[in-house]
Amino acid sequence: MQNIEKYRQDFLGYLNAFTFNDEPKGLYDPIQYILKLGGKRMRPVLTLMAADAFNIDYKKALPAALCVEVFHNFSLVHDDIMDNSPLRRGEPTVHQKWDVNTGILSGDAMLILSYDLFNDYDAATFKALTQLLSKTALEVCEGQQYDVDFEIRNDVTIPEYLKMIEYKTAVLVGCAMQMGAIVANQSEENQKAIYDFGRYLGLAFQLQDDYLDAFGNPETFGKQVGGDIIENKKTFLYLKALELSNDDDKEHLINLFSIELDDNTEKINTVKDIFVSSGSAAQTKQLIQDYTKKAFTVLDDLSIADDKKQALQQFGNYLMTRNV
Amino acid sequence: MQNIEKYRQDFLGYLNAFTFNDEPKGLYDPIQYILKLGGKRMRPVLTLMAADAFNIDYKKALPAALCVEVFHNFSLVHDDIMDNSPLRRGEPTVHQKWDVNTGILSGDAMLILSYDLFNDYDAATFKALTQLLSKTALEVCEGQQYDVDFEIRNDVTIPEYLKMIEYKTAVLVGCAMQMGAIVANQSEENQKAIYDFGRYLGLAFQLQDDYLDAFGNPETFGKQVGGDIIENKKTFLYLKALELSNDDDKEHLINLFSIELDDNTEKINTVKDIFVSSGSAAQTKQLIQDYTKKAFTVLDDLSIADDKKQALQQFGNYLMTRNV
Repeated sequence: MQNIEKYRQDFLGYLNAFTFNDEPKGLYDPIQYILKLGGKRMRPVLTLMAADAFNIDYKKALPAALCVEVFHNFSLVHDDIMDNSPLRRGEPTVHQKWDVNTGILSGDAMLILSYDLFNDYDAATFKALTQLLSKTALEVCEGQQYDVDFEIRNDVTIPEYLKMIEYKTAVLVGCAMQMGAIVANQSEENQKAIYDFGRYLGLAFQLQDDYLDAFGNPETFGKQVGGDIIENKKTFLYLKALELSNDDDKEHLINLFSIELDDNTEKINTVKDIFVSSGSAAQTKQLIQDYTKKAFTVLDDLSIADDKKQALQQFGNYLMTRNV
Repeated sequence: MQNIEKYRQDFLGYLNAFTFNDEPKGLYDPIQYILKLGGKRMRPVLTLMAADAFNIDYKKALPAALCVEVFHNFSLVHDDIMDNSPLRRGEPTVHQKWDVNTGILSGDAMLILSYDLFNDYDAATFKALTQLLSKTALEVCEGQQYDVDFEIRNDVTIPEYLKMIEYKTAVLVGCAMQMGAIVANQSEENQKAIYDFGRYLGLAFQLQDDYLDAFGNPETFGKQVGGDIIENKKTFLYLKALELSNDDDKEHLINLFSIELDDNTEKINTVKDIFVSSGSAAQTKQLIQDYTKKAFTVLDDLSIADDKKQALQQFGNYLMTRNV
């Protein structure tokens, strides 16, 4: 994926050269810290890729790409507080390294900064980008709230779960790509198409994340395999297994997801066995493929050059065949 | 102040008729709750008043007025978490009534919603309003961070303190008024003038708040008189008293502001005595007058009708002579 590396390097160059305020340090140091922690930079890369697909100098989309990355990191900082997570990308989270109040306030400032990056665009582009950001950001908050609500609910349906991951994760991927199209001055039709391409990929991406969390190779996955099972997270794998299992397995699964253990080895193995034997694992893989296919169908209808289409398809395939 | 009541009623009518999303309830109920808790609605009134001063139908500024109020309430929700405050306007704060995570997430959604209220304005107006909001919002965060920093610093200077209250409180008052001018399509010069009018009034307002906290009439003040003294808050009254006191009083004051007591009656009386005897109380009143005068001087140079000027002056005087 040589061309993805090109976008990523250009984005990192722009990020590193970008100067935020630096005083008061208690507010801005945590922002620099989290933005420099790394990550795949998938969202800003997609913004640049979309702009390139629509045949403009993709560097014009760098401020929009940075907006998406800053917004994404805002949501990580506040989510990590809410989830009480000590680590992010192997390093201490902001509220862990500083404190909760710092996490709240620096997160707020990042959300504001994400709105403050469009200033060099003309008024019409500025308005379109800002409206899309607000719509998306609100959906991300709604997705997070649904995720919180689902933790204490035992009657979450699969459509509800899919809406939750769409809001919490997929719409920002769609937004990232649509921003590239907006900077490239594209029609609303093309904007919608590239948004949907990103949204479907985002859904596939999140389901793939859930799948790898259970079935990833411990040697390459990077995170602890089975983490969702340990935390009793009601992922698609779990909800689908409940739907497909016989009464015994269903009861077993519900019981296993109501306890917390010191040694989870056996629990993880049992749950994974039920995920497989019920057919849930296979159906999850199938749904990932379905969403990826939907993304590619949207792409087919888009009037852009074939080599641009291929680049986008290649990126979709890369995301879906990843092991990490 | 009959005309202020008119703006307030129109604002409340607009607020009550405004429909936010209502699902998920865990996200939107707290937003409705805090927005309906009341308060003086000073900031949105000022937006409408500014629009009226520049001779447009001030109702055109209602969405901008709502933005300012929603933003202000976002900052209250997050500040109340950081300050661990159980009560706001005599009622439980959001994180108290729900929980901290709800306060964080609903606050985030309110910040986003404040950006989502300009959609009916043309692109140029939209851009100007949004840029002003971002600049102001970032300064409010910086002011909050300075306030946090000052709690553990013993070398805060008076210029630093004044910058802190300017950022934390005054710039949003200036912003509220400038938004009215932006909707009224005014020159940058007029925008700057009305912004400065609001900013100076905001500074006077905050100093008046500090003054009343110590010297307000307990029967009419509404809050506990001496609250800042109990909490050892380094207000202008305190910093100026340190500057003006003899060594004995200075040492006494520093000692009193390093302890926490069960019965604060004597501490409050002693501190207030030093505030008065040092001349700090008088200098605080003088500074309030100076800022109010600066606000009125800016107003003099503004080319708007005399009756509009008088209305703005009247509001300034009303704010400065208030007892609550």
